[in-house]
Amino acid sequence: MSAIQIITRKRDGIELSEQEIKFLVEGYVSDEIPDYQIAAFLMATYFQGMSFDETYFLTKAMIDSGSAVDFSNLGAIPVDKHSTGGVGDKISLILAPLVASAGVPVPMMSGRGLGHSGGTLDKLEAIPGFRTRLSLSEFKTQIEKIGVAMIGQTQEIVPADQKIYALRDSSGTVASIPLVVASIMSKKIAEGVKALVLDVKTGKGAFFTSKEKSLALAKRLIAIGDKFDLETTALMTAMDQPLGYAVGNWLETKESIETLKGEGPEDVVELTLALGAEMLYQARIVEDVSTGLRKLKELLDSGAAYNKFLTLVQEQGGDISLVENPEKYPKSRFHHFILSQKNGFITSIDALKVGLLAMEIGAGRKKISDPIDYTAGIILRKKNGDQVNVGDPLLELHYSKAISKDSLQQQVDELVTIGEDYSEETPLILSYINKKGQQRWPHK
Amino acid sequence: MSAIQIITRKRDGIELSEQEIKFLVEGYVSDEIPDYQIAAFLMATYFQGMSFDETYFLTKAMIDSGSAVDFSNLGAIPVDKHSTGGVGDKISLILAPLVASAGVPVPMMSGRGLGHSGGTLDKLEAIPGFRTRLSLSEFKTQIEKIGVAMIGQTQEIVPADQKIYALRDSSGTVASIPLVVASIMSKKIAEGVKALVLDVKTGKGAFFTSKEKSLALAKRLIAIGDKFDLETTALMTAMDQPLGYAVGNWLETKESIETLKGEGPEDVVELTLALGAEMLYQARIVEDVSTGLRKLKELLDSGAAYNKFLTLVQEQGGDISLVENPEKYPKSRFHHFILSQKNGFITSIDALKVGLLAMEIGAGRKKISDPIDYTAGIILRKKNGDQVNVGDPLLELHYSKAISKDSLQQQVDELVTIGEDYSEETPLILSYINKKGQQRWPHK
Repeated sequence: MSAIQIITRKRDGIELSEQEIKFLVEGYVSDEIPDYQIAAFLMATYFQGMSFDETYFLTKAMIDSGSAVDFSNLGAIPVDKHSTGGVGDKISLILAPLVASAGVPVPMMSGRGLGHSGGTLDKLEAIPGFRTRLSLSEFKTQIEKIGVAMIGQTQEIVPADQKIYALRDSSGTVASIPLVVASIMSKKIAEGVKALVLDVKTGKGAFFTSKEKSLALAKRLIAIGDKFDLETTALMTAMDQPLGYAVGNWLETKESIETLKGEGPEDVVELTLALGAEMLYQARIVEDVSTGLRKLKELLDSGAAYNKFLTLVQEQGGDISLVENPEKYPKSRFHHFILSQKNGFITSIDALKVGLLAMEIGAGRKKISDPIDYTAGIILRKKNGDQVNVGDPLLELHYSKAISKDSLQQQVDELVTIGEDYSEETPLILSYINKKGQQRWPHK
Repeated sequence: MSAIQIITRKRDGIELSEQEIKFLVEGYVSDEIPDYQIAAFLMATYFQGMSFDETYFLTKAMIDSGSAVDFSNLGAIPVDKHSTGGVGDKISLILAPLVASAGVPVPMMSGRGLGHSGGTLDKLEAIPGFRTRLSLSEFKTQIEKIGVAMIGQTQEIVPADQKIYALRDSSGTVASIPLVVASIMSKKIAEGVKALVLDVKTGKGAFFTSKEKSLALAKRLIAIGDKFDLETTALMTAMDQPLGYAVGNWLETKESIETLKGEGPEDVVELTLALGAEMLYQARIVEDVSTGLRKLKELLDSGAAYNKFLTLVQEQGGDISLVENPEKYPKSRFHHFILSQKNGFITSIDALKVGLLAMEIGAGRKKISDPIDYTAGIILRKKNGDQVNVGDPLLELHYSKAISKDSLQQQVDELVTIGEDYSEETPLILSYINKKGQQRWPHK
């Protein structure tokens, strides 16, 4: 067995064995197989795909590259949520303390933003002092103590993924279903949860823009979860316009705090409750999803979810005075309004373009090593379907870099579309995909 | 412009611009773009191919990575031959001095053997003292002095190809037509010849086993030559059984010497004369190919070609006493005959398997850095169509490694096929492809 033979077999569309996949993953983690051979393998996989079995073997080999957490001592079913990423997606910050306040352990490992897509860790780290790097034993202890922890992937968990992900990112091989599935599921399985709810996004600002590809991704994620006895369901949700009004790290954290205080945007609340109700149902603490929904609304209204967030921030070293008084947070140097030049209705706000603009003004990164300006970002003043008149503010841009206003205006012109009428109200939650991979429409 | 954008565009089947291809090649040669990004690009190219223009831009960028030789002072048209590689292919050793003895300058740059395929440099270096590493100025001076030089690619010529070829070899991206074309043609153009005859092999032991792919390769090679004003024609030739009787470095050199003395195997002579006649025609020293054929036969018969070879060997530091007395060459430790276990006719000798067996017993290398045993190799005692009886020797194996005879016997069983009858006499030269890319059948 040699790396070159395995690459050639994958290139030629031959199904690989467990031994072959294990050989590559182990060899790469131990530096015996060089980057360039794995890069060639990843590109061959991009073109040839992987069978279910190959995806399973890859996920397994990746899990086996590190440690796994065991939460069987908790006496409760730990549950996590994973989103395939979008623009303005701050759901995790609200959902984790909310679900934990219902008594469900939520050990959550999240990622950083890259390209147009934001990352939960960056939003948490916008709170001064917030530590997202806990050791696995700190992580476990905190779950036992307060029922929730939000951290980054540790070195102990799936080291193979850290190495492979960085390589995919720089070799044009991110958008491959088996590679995405193995990357997501290996971490979730190693993280020790017993149930998982996926938010698989589709549309302009999503990982896959087509519903067909998003559905294929959801089904493969669920099937791999099932193979490892991780109960997995998914919501397919629209990511055409950004979620909520805020895009950018601190701006999103602030919107999350408002949502936890019961003052969140309608779409953010709707999605948080839908995902959370699934989590409560999977954790077997409610008998059906509608009971879960009612329970979560109470926990938001009573302040229990907000208090859990304060506890979480304090426990992980964050400055809760800024959570309690967000107006004290430092401001960006510039604050620029983009005004409407038309009368009409907002017919689309391109999430991808909003995400890219936010990145450009400092809120995101092109490379994983780029620094981030936590104060930078965009506030949408209007969303799809809203009426606007000439001179009404459409967007607020917060930034501290020197950027010409003309170049900003030009980008915004392509970003928001204003029409004479708005009719096509598309739902946020497009479908539910159950653990057998079957699709059903939202239950309300 | 960034490497990742260019990789992604190629992955998605978008035609690259000259600037993009130049950016990749220059960035790789200057170590600004890492191996793994180029490996991913090569695999994407394997799947998506390249347009004619892209192949041209790649060839051009590769040529521009180094120096080019100028032979315009010669007052004659320098011509070269290139073979896509096969088993027992020692044609260059005979052809270069033969054509040079007709007064055509032959500045030949060749490669080393890899896998089942042999290389001209290794065969020349089997002659003790023979230097294949000349500087470009030594190369030019020798052409001016004796009309022929046979060297390896220098560091000055197409350094991009040396780097890219090594990467292709270890990333499963060798068998890609645009990559093969750019690799071959960049070197031939930089080498300064004005005409080129290609021996594009097809069949079991060839680079491409199918005629369709071999023809596509030939046409693209010719079209790229034309774009650079390098007059290029091709012969498509059969590589199902090895060429000649000898496979292995010194054994092939010895067979070449015999051929230069007028005692060569029929197929070796036929192919050498056919390629050589094309070269004389391209060099404008004969009016038609049949005159070229007659002229070359005379030069073989008169000893002129053999004498040119002696001059060449001496000029490049080789020990001519071994050329004059090949029987004095050191022998391998073991000498093992494989005998026929059947009566009948040889219906096939699998060139690929012969090449792999020769490699295994020491004549070839798996990796380009492996050492070679010049004395190791295989002598075919029979070829396709020959009658055999039980006990007749089929092959002679020459080797010095400790190898179990049982394992050898097993490999040989699959290598030679003996049937009751032999009818399908296939020609060695399958077609001629002219400089417009049109195919015609052999002219005899």
